[in-house]
Amino acid sequence: MAARVEKLTSDIAWSTPDRIVVKGQDLCGDLLGKQSLGDVAFLIMTDRLPTSENESVMFNALAVTLIEHGMTPSAIATRMTVTGAPEAMQAAIAAGLAGLGSVFVGSMETAAHLLQDAVPDPTAPVDVDGLASEVVTELRSRKAQVPGIGHPVHKPVDPRAVRLFELAEETGFSGPYVALMQRIAAVAGERAGRELPVNATGAIASIASEMGISWTVIRGIGVISRCIGLVGHVREELTNPIAREITARVGRETSEAAIRASEQR
Amino acid sequence: MAARVEKLTSDIAWSTPDRIVVKGQDLCGDLLGKQSLGDVAFLIMTDRLPTSENESVMFNALAVTLIEHGMTPSAIATRMTVTGAPEAMQAAIAAGLAGLGSVFVGSMETAAHLLQDAVPDPTAPVDVDGLASEVVTELRSRKAQVPGIGHPVHKPVDPRAVRLFELAEETGFSGPYVALMQRIAAVAGERAGRELPVNATGAIASIASEMGISWTVIRGIGVISRCIGLVGHVREELTNPIAREITARVGRETSEAAIRASEQR
Amino acid sequence: MAARVEKLTSDIAWSTPDRIVVKGQDLCGDLLGKQSLGDVAFLIMTDRLPTSENESVMFNALAVTLIEHGMTPSAIATRMTVTGAPEAMQAAIAAGLAGLGSVFVGSMETAAHLLQDAVPDPTAPVDVDGLASEVVTELRSRKAQVPGIGHPVHKPVDPRAVRLFELAEETGFSGPYVALMQRIAAVAGERAGRELPVNATGAIASIASEMGISWTVIRGIGVISRCIGLVGHVREELTNPIAREITARVGRETSEAAIRASEQR
Amino acid sequence: MAARVEKLTSDIAWSTPDRIVVKGQDLCGDLLGKQSLGDVAFLIMTDRLPTSENESVMFNALAVTLIEHGMTPSAIATRMTVTGAPEAMQAAIAAGLAGLGSVFVGSMETAAHLLQDAVPDPTAPVDVDGLASEVVTELRSRKAQVPGIGHPVHKPVDPRAVRLFELAEETGFSGPYVALMQRIAAVAGERAGRELPVNATGAIASIASEMGISWTVIRGIGVISRCIGLVGHVREELTNPIAREITARVGRETSEAAIRASEQR
Repeated sequence: MAARVEKLTSDIAWSTPDRIVVKGQDLCGDLLGKQSLGDVAFLIMTDRLPTSENESVMFNALAVTLIEHGMTPSAIATRMTVTGAPEAMQAAIAAGLAGLGSVFVGSMETAAHLLQDAVPDPTAPVDVDGLASEVVTELRSRKAQVPGIGHPVHKPVDPRAVRLFELAEETGFSGPYVALMQRIAAVAGERAGRELPVNATGAIASIASEMGISWTVIRGIGVISRCIGLVGHVREELTNPIAREITARVGRETSEAAIRASEQR
Repeated sequence: MAARVEKLTSDIAWSTPDRIVVKGQDLCGDLLGKQSLGDVAFLIMTDRLPTSENESVMFNALAVTLIEHGMTPSAIATRMTVTGAPEAMQAAIAAGLAGLGSVFVGSMETAAHLLQDAVPDPTAPVDVDGLASEVVTELRSRKAQVPGIGHPVHKPVDPRAVRLFELAEETGFSGPYVALMQRIAAVAGERAGRELPVNATGAIASIASEMGISWTVIRGIGVISRCIGLVGHVREELTNPIAREITARVGRETSEAAIRASEQR
Repeated sequence: MAARVEKLTSDIAWSTPDRIVVKGQDLCGDLLGKQSLGDVAFLIMTDRLPTSENESVMFNALAVTLIEHGMTPSAIATRMTVTGAPEAMQAAIAAGLAGLGSVFVGSMETAAHLLQDAVPDPTAPVDVDGLASEVVTELRSRKAQVPGIGHPVHKPVDPRAVRLFELAEETGFSGPYVALMQRIAAVAGERAGRELPVNATGAIASIASEMGISWTVIRGIGVISRCIGLVGHVREELTNPIAREITARVGRETSEAAIRASEQR
Repeated sequence: MAARVEKLTSDIAWSTPDRIVVKGQDLCGDLLGKQSLGDVAFLIMTDRLPTSENESVMFNALAVTLIEHGMTPSAIATRMTVTGAPEAMQAAIAAGLAGLGSVFVGSMETAAHLLQDAVPDPTAPVDVDGLASEVVTELRSRKAQVPGIGHPVHKPVDPRAVRLFELAEETGFSGPYVALMQRIAAVAGERAGRELPVNATGAIASIASEMGISWTVIRGIGVISRCIGLVGHVREELTNPIAREITARVGRETSEAAIRASEQR
């Protein structure tokens, strides 16, 4: 069973007994005590440290945005899990992260994919109005949702998007992707006949695109954010537990309805 | 089926259409663009922002330490998972985090638990030598491992621990927990007859204890760190995949051995 | 960096282009269409197929017992996850399984560990009364819970345990582990002054011990069971979703309480 | 914040202190000791028990097929995870399941979706040749892979598919979905100019479609199968560990390459 021999390679990190090198940086000499958590996360996602204060401020803001939004499905999944396995908090956080798919948080990937496909070269001139119209028409023609716009609670605007776009302006990251995202929201709103402003994931998707982060890994920003938030939910669930009460209520309501239904048969 | 009615409460976050408040801070007004990712992680873990530059530097260093250590079992688990489910990078990261248990990374919880049990009040005088001796004797009597010391690669010292203790000194977080951890390592080394210096998780456990973080959630620091690193492994696996080659090699070697064994029966 | 060369071996399965052999059985020739799912699960857990109808009936009953118990924390975690990532049902089931730890389901491991430690050789004579008394005394002395007894809903007895013990009697698997588990429950109940009958996990732990399954993997029976049940919860959540309504209710209640609390400050 | 009050309902299970009812069956009276694990899994996936021996044999065969295939990426992910968290075997199994996405195992969903879309009513006459040609043309036009065909190891045929189709014939489940799947493979092979026979996931997808299982949950069959197999990998890793050796080899090879690369810069 001869097999093509392939070398295993990785450019992420290597170590010797007295050194650990991460993306070309000496962990102990260059990073610890010198670079913040958010800046090292930027290094992991882009292969370099931020080269300006503006870049650092903007990326940290993106990564902070989704840390918390209260009792999300992810937070509830984490709390349910830690109730059954308090000895394995890492598994509880893993359970919460597993839900960051196409509907919540992971939706930033869909938005970024769309933006980066529409504008392959952000340095070339972009017909924002034309592209936005095309994109919305195409999505509507196949009954697909426009990603990154609208929010069930944050109406008429998502204050996180407003703030992120303000920061993008201040830090110099408000370019064609941001313009296109905003214009897409406007067009989609016009066609739907109601306000559908850019939401937090749409803002993150467009600004991260400006920063050169590929849509294929942009969801990682949301995963990192929520991971931090979920540590907080584990922490609170251990001291002020609510998972059992939620479980009891749901069990009671569904069980009672099922018993009534079975009696009527 | 009458049930004790219990109110569901949480002190983490609340929101209205135009505001999101996290641990008493207005997300858009107080955090975005003003606080770094690491400082907000500190807020989530301690209910307050760092109150000094020293506190911020020290916590960020703790959180950066374990971001990367190359091809760990977690990194390999994440890469295996993304190979099968490239459309769900959050699940691949969840898979990698699931292994941060008692053996790797999660071992910081065991060390912190031991330290915080031994020194319930860090402001009271502590007999470091006596406690260290007691702790090691007790662990050895029940054949338990001393947590937070020794490393298979980083010998004779773990450079991350050296650097973190240096920073703890500089930032004013080198107190009784650090002293006890170092003394435990010395005593354990003497009794074992070989160098068993404090490793990265032991250093993080002791310094986080100085910062007032409970052992029950200290593992969260490692989970956050590795989550960031695992985003990097997803990113690389998507462009320079190695999981299939590893799988092929392991499959070939185990299959060939099994076939030989079955032929000899 | 010389390293001890170790061979990778596995006795589970091997394959050639035209054959797959699992635990010595030809998958296509010996298993498919000839052995049931439960019997192959027994093969995976014990290295042999059931050798009698009794053995097959008893193991299948153990594996069926925990498939469903309605809206458990695991079921809710799975439903929360599929809401966010409907494209990744495997991740939703993984999230639900992550909570099968020391408190629910995984508790069968604790019970089996205790039983197998107390009776290392089930063929030797066992002083059931003496052992039960010792075990309960020892657990109470360190304020540990007696595993495998009591249930918040199924009172005064857990009907699953009653049925499993009846089957164990019929199939010839009611030996020293079952006797010890039952006696432990009786003693614990006497000392606590209330009925604490063996529950489903206690029954599974003791009967699986009779069948020669090591406590180290007994939790696997519960994981397999719940995996099947969670597929059902994914299925129902996709057509009759309840996760969003639960999330909305929890969010409303915790948010309103937090807002009131913040206004009173 | 007025909210539409919605009732939470579920048809899966309900319980009272002395009864547990699953899909209308009394767990203790109707299932335990009377129905096998595979038949109860069928109940969970279709809302009824198998009504014939043929149906039971066929479904059990589908569920057994993917239990084991040696050192798959999932098996390696599980072994990596249990190495770090041996106290949480459920998390290790969860990690392995997380990778059952679009590429492996979960691919049965893609195949079943395609088949069920092509043949909405299997009782109506079906132009198998025409449909197969259309389907392959459409997939090739958008450069999408034909799901359910070909295998890197099992050539020229996948023996599992051969055996499953034989069983489908014997048990009366070889209808239009099976015919279409086989014809699609033939057409795709002709157009590609090489043998691309139906593989195990294609066979499962088509036969499960004959049994009336919706493509939306068909992946559940694979998740259940692999869950059982992964229990076996946890079991073996605990007694004959290979994860550390794999990790060491991968780390050595990637680290050495990275060091060489850094020296050449």
